[in-house]
Amino acid sequence: MVKSFEELKEKAKVKGQKRLVVACAEDKTVLEASMSAMETGLITPIFVGDKNKILEIGKSCGFSVDNKYIEDIIGVENSVKKSVEIVRSGNGDFLLKGIVKTSTFLKGLLDAECGLRTSRRLTHSAILEAPGYHKLFQLTDGGMNVKPDVETKIDIIKNACDFALSLGVMKPKVAILAAVEVVNPEMQETVDAAIIKQMAERGQLGEILVDGPLALDLAVSKEACEKKGITSSVAGDADILIVPDIAAGNISAKILIYLGKAKAAGIILGAKAPVVMLSRADDTETKLNSIALGVLSC
Amino acid sequence: MVKSFEELKEKAKVKGQKRLVVACAEDKTVLEASMSAMETGLITPIFVGDKNKILEIGKSCGFSVDNKYIEDIIGVENSVKKSVEIVRSGNGDFLLKGIVKTSTFLKGLLDAECGLRTSRRLTHSAILEAPGYHKLFQLTDGGMNVKPDVETKIDIIKNACDFALSLGVMKPKVAILAAVEVVNPEMQETVDAAIIKQMAERGQLGEILVDGPLALDLAVSKEACEKKGITSSVAGDADILIVPDIAAGNISAKILIYLGKAKAAGIILGAKAPVVMLSRADDTETKLNSIALGVLSC
Repeated sequence: MVKSFEELKEKAKVKGQKRLVVACAEDKTVLEASMSAMETGLITPIFVGDKNKILEIGKSCGFSVDNKYIEDIIGVENSVKKSVEIVRSGNGDFLLKGIVKTSTFLKGLLDAECGLRTSRRLTHSAILEAPGYHKLFQLTDGGMNVKPDVETKIDIIKNACDFALSLGVMKPKVAILAAVEVVNPEMQETVDAAIIKQMAERGQLGEILVDGPLALDLAVSKEACEKKGITSSVAGDADILIVPDIAAGNISAKILIYLGKAKAAGIILGAKAPVVMLSRADDTETKLNSIALGVLSC
Repeated sequence: MVKSFEELKEKAKVKGQKRLVVACAEDKTVLEASMSAMETGLITPIFVGDKNKILEIGKSCGFSVDNKYIEDIIGVENSVKKSVEIVRSGNGDFLLKGIVKTSTFLKGLLDAECGLRTSRRLTHSAILEAPGYHKLFQLTDGGMNVKPDVETKIDIIKNACDFALSLGVMKPKVAILAAVEVVNPEMQETVDAAIIKQMAERGQLGEILVDGPLALDLAVSKEACEKKGITSSVAGDADILIVPDIAAGNISAKILIYLGKAKAAGIILGAKAPVVMLSRADDTETKLNSIALGVLSC
């Protein structure tokens, strides 16, 4: 796994400019982030939305958007539909959600006829660079699936592993997290972890290493493993942390970002093309990191 | 709220030496931590357990335990019983769990006849000093209650608020965490948060400020609140973070400690006297911080 977002962005630049399709681009946040990603050589943008508004918002942010980057479409649903179509037809590489409700965006994305649906569920991965860890790691799913069952967790794992592969990790180490490292029937996440671990042992999940249930300290700290006498091929060196549910994932990713000074980016996996969603609360660096992730996973 | 563990330890020293009763003290970890706490003037120890073993282990760690600090008792159950009795009779101020199974220890602690049970449930609070926050804060419950219902969450909140008071916070700010800040019937933690918030509004929880559901960024970052247009008396400045369940709490506290370089301590609240439990994986500083917390909450 790459060690930092700097390294990741360099890798993305080497890969060459990808075509970023921005659905409903009439928004300061996505316009600024996309322009900045273009300036750093990561992408070529295709802004889908109301041309006049896009030009106006661009102007108010201090840059002029070239007409050739704009696909003039009125209406939110139309804009999403057009954006998805551009990617589907091979004229765009990945998507960025603009100023459109997540539910409306996902409806267009997952449309059975003309969407980008695959056999996998959509899952969210946060990629984190933390002061106390020796490499970037994924934490998933703190953004999409509320209370995943075993089948959903398997999709979460498969999506994260495919993505890890695109970041250059050949045999990702997956830690399934819980509060404890023993299987306790009263804690469903420990039961799920045992099931998935055994599926992986039987080769049902492909070329990955899985261990769980693991408490967080055992997943990421070799020292904690030594003190507790735990040995495993994953423990102390995890590339991917699987959380029990959206609350655990969302809280733990954000606590590390806001209070532990970690750098972060997020991506939605499981569609035919990667999808980037930014939050208004993200800082400029986070937004750029997320777009770089999208480039790498194309 | 105090700003750091250094400040907290100074406060504990000012309070004066408290009598720490160590149940089943035949253990390197607790002996070392207690001796170190005595040296720094925080406590006077009462080591309950097999005298010969205690002396032997002390010797192997390079210090001689004075006989006057030892209560010679053979047998794990007996040792727990005696320790609880010492506190119950007023001859000790708080407890430290030594080398005894948590279940055995809690059984003795909660014994209906001769334990230290109160009307409140036992709850675990982690106290954290994080690089990105302006004060110490509590995160609870990531250690005792697996899937707390509303009633249990209220005990968790009350215990944490009483404890905050002993740390000098007169009107603690309590954030009930979830992945989102909207109430969503499919996410039980957001429903529980709404219920508890309204109970607090009606004055049912005493002199505290509560808000929830709150995503973590809103609980601790004024900047995130501004960007999302959220105002509340708690948001951006929480003293106490209430997590949905043990998994979310355990993972988020540990990720901040191990990957976000936070300092930490833990304490069990809700009994007649505070109870400290240390983990072998804790470092010396964490152990000492936990004992200082015990002193302050006596």
